[in-house]
Amino acid sequence: MLLLDEKHRAVNDMLAAELAEVEARFAAELTSDLACVNDLVRHIERYRGKMLRPTLVLLCGTAAAPDQPIGDAHRTLSAVVEMVHMATLVHDDILDDADTRRQGATLNALRGNEAAVMLGDYLVSHAYHLCSALDNQAAARRIAAATNTVCEGELLQLANRYNWSIDEQTYFDIIDRKTGALCGVACRLGALASGAGRDVCDGLDLFGRQLGSAFQIVDDVLDLLGNEQIVGKSLGKDLEKGKLTLPLIRQLETAAPADRQKLLSLLRGEDEDRAERVGRMLINSDAVNEARNRAERFVQQAKGQLAKLPPSPARDVLEAMADAVLTRQA
Amino acid sequence: MLLLDEKHRAVNDMLAAELAEVEARFAAELTSDLACVNDLVRHIERYRGKMLRPTLVLLCGTAAAPDQPIGDAHRTLSAVVEMVHMATLVHDDILDDADTRRQGATLNALRGNEAAVMLGDYLVSHAYHLCSALDNQAAARRIAAATNTVCEGELLQLANRYNWSIDEQTYFDIIDRKTGALCGVACRLGALASGAGRDVCDGLDLFGRQLGSAFQIVDDVLDLLGNEQIVGKSLGKDLEKGKLTLPLIRQLETAAPADRQKLLSLLRGEDEDRAERVGRMLINSDAVNEARNRAERFVQQAKGQLAKLPPSPARDVLEAMADAVLTRQA
Repeated sequence: MLLLDEKHRAVNDMLAAELAEVEARFAAELTSDLACVNDLVRHIERYRGKMLRPTLVLLCGTAAAPDQPIGDAHRTLSAVVEMVHMATLVHDDILDDADTRRQGATLNALRGNEAAVMLGDYLVSHAYHLCSALDNQAAARRIAAATNTVCEGELLQLANRYNWSIDEQTYFDIIDRKTGALCGVACRLGALASGAGRDVCDGLDLFGRQLGSAFQIVDDVLDLLGNEQIVGKSLGKDLEKGKLTLPLIRQLETAAPADRQKLLSLLRGEDEDRAERVGRMLINSDAVNEARNRAERFVQQAKGQLAKLPPSPARDVLEAMADAVLTRQA
Repeated sequence: MLLLDEKHRAVNDMLAAELAEVEARFAAELTSDLACVNDLVRHIERYRGKMLRPTLVLLCGTAAAPDQPIGDAHRTLSAVVEMVHMATLVHDDILDDADTRRQGATLNALRGNEAAVMLGDYLVSHAYHLCSALDNQAAARRIAAATNTVCEGELLQLANRYNWSIDEQTYFDIIDRKTGALCGVACRLGALASGAGRDVCDGLDLFGRQLGSAFQIVDDVLDLLGNEQIVGKSLGKDLEKGKLTLPLIRQLETAAPADRQKLLSLLRGEDEDRAERVGRMLINSDAVNEARNRAERFVQQAKGQLAKLPPSPARDVLEAMADAVLTRQA
């Protein structure tokens, strides 16, 4: 992120320092007296990536009250939302039958689905344990409500496997619950921990949800671009699991009847190169652009929520994050 | 349970009334706006059985303060611990590859492991959501600490699969964490909700843990008794998963070298009737009795904890529950 202004650098410095503290709390919370547990936890440290959700907690906390420093509650909440997120990744990999994550073997590929089920449970349990250390039942209730929603999103997606006539509304509902809800609660609680009022918290929750949805759509679009073999592989896996993303859903909804039929027979059939052919049809249609447009609309809506905050370097960084969702190449 | 005294009948009436209320709260908490979710939840209603843990919350609450009525906190805590327990059953069935529970198909057999993973997650999430409605971070923290421990127990058991030289201490650690911890916290929080002091809460927590461990051992013993075909089937499944229970562990630890070798080659081998032969060896040894004796010792210890409470009908019922662990036939 090219933020050369001194005040923006100060925000980045704050993030770097605070995220390091968040990682420390994360690691401390997960430490067990049992070596076999610590061993498994070490394996998934690799999943921790960019810490998007902790970043949202910290930035929303700062943007809601720019003159107030980040405090203990922000750090704990950051570790909590990241822990929940990682639990969803570990369980998602079971549902997706995934064998790699971050250029390494997934836990389920290495140690079996059982280890992945239990470790995901361990992570969630510790997230709540850490959360209950805050003197704030309201925050705990919000996080639990968000995880309820994430679970519902996963179950809704499961229930719609192989539903080739799934509509856009259901797709948006799925991604709002699966991805949006946790991003939203991260933003809300960051602001709440800074003493923000109801309006600001509600607005930032929406920001997070719209950001999360935009991110998911762009993710799905990127999965269709690039090297045909790679596209074929990931699209192939999705189709095997009966999972449709926005470009495909749009194409099924809007294509001319003959094209729609052709696409449906491909989807229902068992051609070995089904995925490559579906991928090519999508690239050669408007579907990918239309999906990108939808992501852009979400980003505009998200930035609209930010306008309610006082101007500040932290707010600028949030705006830049929203823009970055659309410009990422991978 | 033959409790003909009027005061004991009053306790049973209290339990019947309160457990009905607990069931109602349980159902209300799990109700979603999504039909596909409610559909899955309906499937596992069958798992709800005897409501042992809610019973422990209510009885310990009453025994700790016999003149105080059961209140809202007791009911909510009861629903919470039962929800956690059911989540563990749903996930356990995945780990055990189980196809039946309570004379019906398990969720994973019916709808796949993925549905079972996500529904278990949904149950746990709602347990914490319900728990955060209490104005009591301390209770929430205790429950989360207990679920941390349950997860550790499962992971410790997983790590000891096929470990034919697993020692008794590890077995007791596993069952204490997997089964004891949640029973213990149910007892503790029931008493805490009645305003009991630290000593009483600690004592009842121990009662619950010892009761849970005794229960698990007797469960494991009963799995070896009865019709040889049935024994062969459940023992067979355990051995396939590399899971050893106390009678087998004791036999391996204490048998004469020649018998131990014979048993080990059976366990490591692939004889079709391996389970029936192992089962017969155990019945014909002291191992089953020794396991029962250990269960008896746990029950004695548990009843010892009760002695710290003032005499009351509720305390009598708890004592009867402890005795019933040893006399059950199935």
